[in-house]
Amino acid sequence: MKKLSHLDAAGRARMVDVGEKAPSRRRAVASAWVPLAAETVSLLESGSLAKGDALAVARVAGIQGAKQTSSLVPLCHPLSLDHVAVEIELRSEPPGARILVQAATRGPTGVEMEALTGASVAALALIDMVKSVERGATVESVRLELKEGGRSGRWIRDGFEDPFPSPAGGPEESA
Amino acid sequence: MKKLSHLDAAGRARMVDVGEKAPSRRRAVASAWVPLAAETVSLLESGSLAKGDALAVARVAGIQGAKQTSSLVPLCHPLSLDHVAVEIELRSEPPGARILVQAATRGPTGVEMEALTGASVAALALIDMVKSVERGATVESVRLELKEGGRSGRWIRDGFEDPFPSPAGGPEESA
Amino acid sequence: MKKLSHLDAAGRARMVDVGEKAPSRRRAVASAWVPLAAETVSLLESGSLAKGDALAVARVAGIQGAKQTSSLVPLCHPLSLDHVAVEIELRSEPPGARILVQAATRGPTGVEMEALTGASVAALALIDMVKSVERGATVESVRLELKEGGRSGRWIRDGFEDPFPSPAGGPEESA
Amino acid sequence: MKKLSHLDAAGRARMVDVGEKAPSRRRAVASAWVPLAAETVSLLESGSLAKGDALAVARVAGIQGAKQTSSLVPLCHPLSLDHVAVEIELRSEPPGARILVQAATRGPTGVEMEALTGASVAALALIDMVKSVERGATVESVRLELKEGGRSGRWIRDGFEDPFPSPAGGPEESA
Amino acid sequence: MKKLSHLDAAGRARMVDVGEKAPSRRRAVASAWVPLAAETVSLLESGSLAKGDALAVARVAGIQGAKQTSSLVPLCHPLSLDHVAVEIELRSEPPGARILVQAATRGPTGVEMEALTGASVAALALIDMVKSVERGATVESVRLELKEGGRSGRWIRDGFEDPFPSPAGGPEESA
Amino acid sequence: MKKLSHLDAAGRARMVDVGEKAPSRRRAVASAWVPLAAETVSLLESGSLAKGDALAVARVAGIQGAKQTSSLVPLCHPLSLDHVAVEIELRSEPPGARILVQAATRGPTGVEMEALTGASVAALALIDMVKSVERGATVESVRLELKEGGRSGRWIRDGFEDPFPSPAGGPEESA
Repeated sequence: MKKLSHLDAAGRARMVDVGEKAPSRRRAVASAWVPLAAETVSLLESGSLAKGDALAVARVAGIQGAKQTSSLVPLCHPLSLDHVAVEIELRSEPPGARILVQAATRGPTGVEMEALTGASVAALALIDMVKSVERGATVESVRLELKEGGRSGRWIRDGFEDPFPSPAGGPEESA
Repeated sequence: MKKLSHLDAAGRARMVDVGEKAPSRRRAVASAWVPLAAETVSLLESGSLAKGDALAVARVAGIQGAKQTSSLVPLCHPLSLDHVAVEIELRSEPPGARILVQAATRGPTGVEMEALTGASVAALALIDMVKSVERGATVESVRLELKEGGRSGRWIRDGFEDPFPSPAGGPEESA
Repeated sequence: MKKLSHLDAAGRARMVDVGEKAPSRRRAVASAWVPLAAETVSLLESGSLAKGDALAVARVAGIQGAKQTSSLVPLCHPLSLDHVAVEIELRSEPPGARILVQAATRGPTGVEMEALTGASVAALALIDMVKSVERGATVESVRLELKEGGRSGRWIRDGFEDPFPSPAGGPEESA
Repeated sequence: MKKLSHLDAAGRARMVDVGEKAPSRRRAVASAWVPLAAETVSLLESGSLAKGDALAVARVAGIQGAKQTSSLVPLCHPLSLDHVAVEIELRSEPPGARILVQAATRGPTGVEMEALTGASVAALALIDMVKSVERGATVESVRLELKEGGRSGRWIRDGFEDPFPSPAGGPEESA
Repeated sequence: MKKLSHLDAAGRARMVDVGEKAPSRRRAVASAWVPLAAETVSLLESGSLAKGDALAVARVAGIQGAKQTSSLVPLCHPLSLDHVAVEIELRSEPPGARILVQAATRGPTGVEMEALTGASVAALALIDMVKSVERGATVESVRLELKEGGRSGRWIRDGFEDPFPSPAGGPEESA
Repeated sequence: MKKLSHLDAAGRARMVDVGEKAPSRRRAVASAWVPLAAETVSLLESGSLAKGDALAVARVAGIQGAKQTSSLVPLCHPLSLDHVAVEIELRSEPPGARILVQAATRGPTGVEMEALTGASVAALALIDMVKSVERGATVESVRLELKEGGRSGRWIRDGFEDPFPSPAGGPEESA
C-alpha cells in the first residue's frame, strides 16, 4: 500500500533521511505555461529588445528561486546545485510564455523540487511584470518534465522534448 | 498605448516608486489547483486525520512563502503584512486540492503578488508531499481571484465566490 | 473558554488578522540564562577584554536573530523594528551568562516574539562559542520579562527589574 | 589550558577551518522543555486532533529553523543536511511539551548547533502558539542530548534515552 | 566630542532606537565605479544588445541586495522601501561601469545603507559576470552621493549631479 | 575570442554548469580599503578596546555576508564553506581600515565571489558604524588578492603578501 514518504507512521511531518543514499549526478527539468494576450506578448518582446530587461528579470528570479527551494518547501533538503538554467520562450500561437527550468546536482537526493520552484518563481516574476497590463494573467501547468539520476532512474513526461544539452557522460549514474 | 510599468523608457527593470501612493487597506486572494489521483487525495485525507501533518505543512509553507515575496519576486516592494491565511480543500470530483490564499496590508501598494506567491509555495509543498506516490502531479491555474483597495479599487474574477470573512468596515478604503 | 488564537475554528493554523489593531508604541524584553562552569565564564571574560569578540558575536547574533523572527516563527507578522538591544552579563554566583533583549516597534502587533527570538539566538551563539570547552552547556529559562503597548497594556514578570532606559514619553500608548 | 576555538590568538571571532576534517556521518539530538499549564496542554492536544495544526506548526518551524542555523549562528559552517526530525510530546505530569530534534549530515563538522537551533525554534513557535492563553510560558533546558560522528566520537548526556531509530550501519564512522 | 552612535557608553553594539524619530520621506543615492578593460566594456555592451542579460543581472542583483540590507548590515533597521532603482552606465573614457542606486522610504530612518548596499551588490554581480575575462577587476569608490529627508536634511557630495527625477513635491520633509 | 561565461550564445544569463568540475581544495582572499579621517580611526580603536564591539560587528558581518553570497550574486553556486576569516587592520598612514577576507571550500567551483562579498559586507558594516561621524566615508578597492585551487591554479595579485596561514598540505589540488 502506498504512503506519503514525508509523514511518519503517526502522520507527523519529517524530512526523509537520505543518509544512506549514494550521491550521484541528478538532473530535473520543470516547466510552466503563462498564457497571455497577444498584445502582452508583443510588449514583452519589445521589452526584450535592445536593453530590455523583461525576460531577464524572470530568468534571474527563476535561478534565485531554485536556490531558495529548501527554505521555501519545508521538507526539502538543503543541497549544493551544480547548475540552474531558465529558458523562456515567447509564443504567439497560442500567445503566452513557456518557461523551462533545469537544475542539476551531485547530491544524495533529486532536484525535482528545485526545478519546479525555479519554474514557479520565474512565472511569478513574469506575472508581476505584466500585471499592470493584464491583471488576470495566470500560471498554468507547473510540472516536472524530466528526472534523471538516483535509484529510480530516468523519468520523462510523455511527449516532452528535452532542449537542454546532455551533460558529458550522459545520464547514467552510480546509485 | 499600454506599457510595462516595471520597465523604464529605456527598457530597464526598476522597482516602481510608490512614494506618492497613499497607504490604505488592501487585500488580495489567489488560488491554485493541484489535480491529483483519487487515491492520492485519500492519502492526504488520512494524512490529515489524527495528528496528520499533510496539509498543515502546505499551509505553513504558503504563509511563510507569502512573507518571502519581496525576496523572490525582484521588483516587489518589501511591506508589512496584516494577515495571511491559507485554505486547502481536498476535492473528489474531480480529485485534487484547491488552495486559496488571502493576504492583507495597510501599505502603499497591493498584495496580489503576496497572495499569488503564497498559493504557489503552498502548491509546491503539496507537490513535494505527494511526489513519492504521484510523480507527475502538476500545479494548474495559479491566479488572482480578488483584489481590493488602492486607487484601482475592487476587482474580482468572474465567478469567484469569496470565502474569507469580510474585514470589519468592509473593503471600502481611502485611496 | 480559552482558545489558541493562531488556530481557526477548524484547528487550522493562520496568521491572526491585525488589520483592525491600531499602531502604537510597543516594547518587549525577554531573557535567557546560560549556566556555565566558572572556568568558562573566565574564558568569556578574557575573550571580551582587549579586542575579544566573544560576547560581541552573541550580541550581533541576537540583534540579527530578532530581525529574522517572522521568517522563523511561522505565524508571526513581518514588521518594522525601531530598536533592538542585547545585553549580556557574565555572572559568577552562580556562574553563567544572563542575556536580556529589548525590542520595540510602532506597529499594530507586539514584539514579544522578537525579544524571545533575539534572546534564543544570542544564547545559541553563546553555546556555539563555548561548546569546545563545555559541551553540555544548556540554555535555561528563555522567557518574556516585560511587555508594553497595545490594547492589553503593560505586563511585567514578578520580580523583574527593567534595566532599559524608558523611551521618551514613557510606555503610554494610543490603542 | 583550555581556549575558545572560535576566537583566534588575538581574541577575534573566526569560523574554524574544517578543511582538514574528514567528512563522516554525524548525528546530534537536542531537546527543549516548555512547561505549560495543564489547561494549555489540553488545548494543544485538542488542537492536534482532527485537522489541528498546533504541533505541526512547531514541527515545521523546527525543521526550517535547523536549516537556517548557519545564517543565525555567526560562526557555524553552512552544510548539507541529510535529515532533520522534530518530535514533540505533550506531557501531563508535570504538564508541558517535550521537544526532541535530530539532525544528521555527512559533512566535515558536527550538527550539534543544527539540532539545538531546531529545538529552540520549535520551542519559540510553540510559545507563540500558546502565548494568547499563557503569556508567561517559558522555554527551559535547551540542550544537547547526544552527539555521534567525527573525531571526538559519541557523547550522550547522562540518562538520555535515544528514541530515534539508529541509522543503518550504526554510529561508527571513518574520522 | 564625537562618538560612534552604534556603540553604547560601554562600547557595546546596539541598534539605535529610532522610536522618537518622525517618519518622513527619505531618499539616498550611492554609486560605485568598476574600472574595466576596454575589451570587457565591449563584451558587456554586446551582451546587453538583443536579448543580452549582462547588465540586467547586475540591476536585479542591486535591487534585491538593497532589500537585504538589514539582514546584511547588523545594526540597520528593517524598513519598508518605496523605491529602488539601479542605473549602470558603461563608459569608454576611461573604460568601466558606473553604477548608481537610488533608494527611498517613508520611514523613521534614512536609506543611505540601502543605497550603498545596492551599489555594492550590483558591483559584485558585475565582477562575477566579467571575472572569466578579467580576473583582476575591482570595485572602486562605493560611496554615498546624496541624502535627503530626516532631521539632518539634504547632503550632496561635491560635484555630484543627481540624475534621478525629483519625486513630486520635492525633497522637503516634515522631520 | 573572449566571451562572458555567464551568458549563453543568445546572451541569456545562466548559472555555469560545474557538474564536470572535480571537487578540490579552493581558497580565495579579497580585500577592501576604507579610507577614514584620522579621528574616526581613533574612535574605532577606542571602540575596540575593553568590551568595544566596533570591529567585531564588521567581522561578523563579513563572515555572515560571505555565507550569503549565492543569494546575493545571482549566478553564483550555493556551496559549502570550510572556512571564512575576516581581518581588519586600522591604519594611520594614511588613515583607514584595511579589510582582508579569506574563504575556503572543497567544492567544484571557486570562492572568489565569497571572499569579495565578505569584504564588501564587512566594509558596509564599517561604513554604517562610522557614518554618524563621517558621512562621506567610502569603500575603495574591493578586489581579489589571491585565488588557489581548481583547474586554473594559483593567481596572486602583484605585490600582495598573503597573511593567512597556509592550510596543511598547501595549495596543490587534484583538478
